[in-house]
Amino acid sequence: MYTKMPHWLTKQAYLHPEKPALEWPDGRKLTFLELKEASERLAKKLANLSIGKGTRVAILSRNSFDMIAAIHALSYLEALIVFLNVRLTERELMYQLEKSKAKILLGERSLLEEKRLAFPKQYTFEDIHSLSEKEVRLAEVIDLTAPFTMMYTSGTTGFPKGVIHTYGNHWFSAIGSVLNLGLDDDDKWLLTLPMFHVGGLSILIRSVTYGMTVFFMEKYDVKTLKEALYEKKVTVASLVTLMLQQLLDEIGEEPFPEHVRCLLLGGGGIPEPVLERAVQKQMPVFLSYGMTETSSQIVTLSAAYIRKKIGSAGKPLFPASVKIDNPDEAGIGEILVKGPMVFHGYDEMPDVNEQVFKDGWFHTGDLGYLDEDGFLYVVDRRSDLIISGGENIYPSEVEQVLMAYPGVKEAAVVGKRDACWGEVPVAFVVAKDAIAEDALIEFVRRKIASYKAPREIIFVDRLPRNASNKIMRRRLKEQLD
Amino acid sequence: MYTKMPHWLTKQAYLHPEKPALEWPDGRKLTFLELKEASERLAKKLANLSIGKGTRVAILSRNSFDMIAAIHALSYLEALIVFLNVRLTERELMYQLEKSKAKILLGERSLLEEKRLAFPKQYTFEDIHSLSEKEVRLAEVIDLTAPFTMMYTSGTTGFPKGVIHTYGNHWFSAIGSVLNLGLDDDDKWLLTLPMFHVGGLSILIRSVTYGMTVFFMEKYDVKTLKEALYEKKVTVASLVTLMLQQLLDEIGEEPFPEHVRCLLLGGGGIPEPVLERAVQKQMPVFLSYGMTETSSQIVTLSAAYIRKKIGSAGKPLFPASVKIDNPDEAGIGEILVKGPMVFHGYDEMPDVNEQVFKDGWFHTGDLGYLDEDGFLYVVDRRSDLIISGGENIYPSEVEQVLMAYPGVKEAAVVGKRDACWGEVPVAFVVAKDAIAEDALIEFVRRKIASYKAPREIIFVDRLPRNASNKIMRRRLKEQLD
Repeated sequence: MYTKMPHWLTKQAYLHPEKPALEWPDGRKLTFLELKEASERLAKKLANLSIGKGTRVAILSRNSFDMIAAIHALSYLEALIVFLNVRLTERELMYQLEKSKAKILLGERSLLEEKRLAFPKQYTFEDIHSLSEKEVRLAEVIDLTAPFTMMYTSGTTGFPKGVIHTYGNHWFSAIGSVLNLGLDDDDKWLLTLPMFHVGGLSILIRSVTYGMTVFFMEKYDVKTLKEALYEKKVTVASLVTLMLQQLLDEIGEEPFPEHVRCLLLGGGGIPEPVLERAVQKQMPVFLSYGMTETSSQIVTLSAAYIRKKIGSAGKPLFPASVKIDNPDEAGIGEILVKGPMVFHGYDEMPDVNEQVFKDGWFHTGDLGYLDEDGFLYVVDRRSDLIISGGENIYPSEVEQVLMAYPGVKEAAVVGKRDACWGEVPVAFVVAKDAIAEDALIEFVRRKIASYKAPREIIFVDRLPRNASNKIMRRRLKEQLD
Repeated sequence: MYTKMPHWLTKQAYLHPEKPALEWPDGRKLTFLELKEASERLAKKLANLSIGKGTRVAILSRNSFDMIAAIHALSYLEALIVFLNVRLTERELMYQLEKSKAKILLGERSLLEEKRLAFPKQYTFEDIHSLSEKEVRLAEVIDLTAPFTMMYTSGTTGFPKGVIHTYGNHWFSAIGSVLNLGLDDDDKWLLTLPMFHVGGLSILIRSVTYGMTVFFMEKYDVKTLKEALYEKKVTVASLVTLMLQQLLDEIGEEPFPEHVRCLLLGGGGIPEPVLERAVQKQMPVFLSYGMTETSSQIVTLSAAYIRKKIGSAGKPLFPASVKIDNPDEAGIGEILVKGPMVFHGYDEMPDVNEQVFKDGWFHTGDLGYLDEDGFLYVVDRRSDLIISGGENIYPSEVEQVLMAYPGVKEAAVVGKRDACWGEVPVAFVVAKDAIAEDALIEFVRRKIASYKAPREIIFVDRLPRNASNKIMRRRLKEQLD
């Protein structure tokens, strides 16, 4: 099959030179042509660092124009971008930098100064801007089979695994979304989720494949969000539950504007009272299920079904399939997914890949069932994944840190419902000796990103285990309700 | 790359079971679920004829529900459909049936009776309906790399050649169109062009990939067309120039309905006066350029540019590229196209394929140029080029001048052999009123270089056109020999 097409940004600059690619809350705009030219200039500067086809370049940045230009520039150089989560600790970042074999690290100055990473080739965006432009041949076509981005996700096993997305994964994800949500000339998609996660990055990809304006809210705050929806003609917004909640409070009694046609909710379940308020205000809330491995949403519940199918994540997007592996009497089993937006494997992990892919089906590790109409219900996230304010927390990773503390014998981390964050991590600990809660939490904070640290430690005599000696996390969660 | 996805019709029946897949002018509707079930039943009946993966099955039919169900049914059996043009003579049809190695011929009863083809395995749709259903495994997935349809090109260059379309060609054609035209939940696309041509078939493909209703006007007439646009909430219609012309006459002074967002014009250039009337009525006319080999439109001019870029065919769709080969001083050269909707080659014609594909670019044989903004202007079919005394004459340029003369309804210019000049241009003209030959020639001479003016005008009642409404210039040339 012919798998190539013109370079996405170049093509949009040709099709819609004067259309805004980016619009900021303060009214500034940048057209597709200007974005292309800025990205090309940056690519020519980056070329001084010997970045070429397949070079792995890490980016450590909060959402910013520099980050967007760098993503496109690295695409023009056919590099593989390794996205780093800015909230990770120095230790976590170094692990990913080494594991990914990144040759170069690009970043926001304040972050590079803060993290003080022992990584040789690191450059701030300002460093790059000061370079001269090197004459190099920039990519004119995109090959859907080529790798484009990499993001680390921890998963069941605790240690982070690199998820590689090809251009084709991103393309089919964007197309799956457009066939579900439709597309209008005047569409403007609000981007405030971090682009180092696939939920944020995928909005940038949709912009450049659809020729659609991104409303770029670099720093999130609810007042700006409301203004974007009410005054700035944003039509689609990707949000996490916390933002929706704050938005509801901010709106109060005001009616919701009709031109907003989709509020796409990702990142875990939404508390029913919040959903109820949103539906009563006739907000077009679309729930979705997805993960880094599926290049963002792969199952989506249209707003039309939100009352009829309460608790469902919806149906798989047009090019995707979902099935339940080995269902129990209640129909519950592991959720398997398939489709051209599903990644092909973790970076350099043949053994893990063999386990998670069977007959082309990716085993998500999540539990769920399909109802009689084929709507998916996610019962439990993989290995009791905790989703807190849109960030994934893998209990096993936190447990390993806890158990490294003197006097801790066993530890189990579970999510506790939280009105603000959706969930927060709480630890159950079996201690050999007396341990101070504060000291233990502080110990964790120094090792891993602070959002992963337990908010609370509950000391117990033993952990509930099943016959095969596995910790029964659901039993623990019940104690918290 | 993973190139599979769920079977399109099965998926739409799952996503939108109750949404109409088809709607008829008399108000009848058929949902995606009903269409799937009807197609599955037909597939199980067809299975009695030993149709399996790759079996070549020809269809000879005017637009009908039987034809639609047969297309989907053959897709469930993974057959390769050979579409036959119902206007062909018995001899032409036999040539294509033999050349295509079709094993089975399915058709409309009246056509099979009329054509009396000496082909052994021919069945009317009624024959198939009377069979019992055989239990076979129907395709659950579509592989984009698999061949799906074959059509013989009208053959401007001579003998008919079989164009094979893969599922991927059709998929990327549909996606290229949606990224250009957008997509709305309420979209309803009028289908009245014959499905044995790619212009008609592509509407069926869009329906089943977008989950969009087709307004199915099996027999074209202008009153029903007007009613569809005005009363039946059709939002998009694919038309040829003649239909647009008749529509304009039918509408008269009535305003054009706002919910119609696209009238897609294919099948050759449009006379400027017609376009002018349409634009004055604020009809959203999209001009396009494409051919069987590109799986329908590959270059489209958005309505927004219709005044600014008069005469242009527009810009290539998102996944496609166009370039001009070997341009002359005026920038005119052969139009080359590339992209995942472009076919991979003519059936069993390795020599021709080697000629028409170079570095992945398909050489269309058409002449054109790109203006400074990258808009394509199609100057002429290469085979129609008239070369007179070393000067190039492009018939369409002369025809446009002729049609600007009061009383001229249609005009076609072809080359006549000339002992002195090689060729000289001669015009065939359909006149509404009596026209003096001398005066008309003089009119042209004053508009364009005199060597381009016809030496002779032949007044005729009508111009010979093929099924896609293209003027058959060779028929005219033959009259001159």
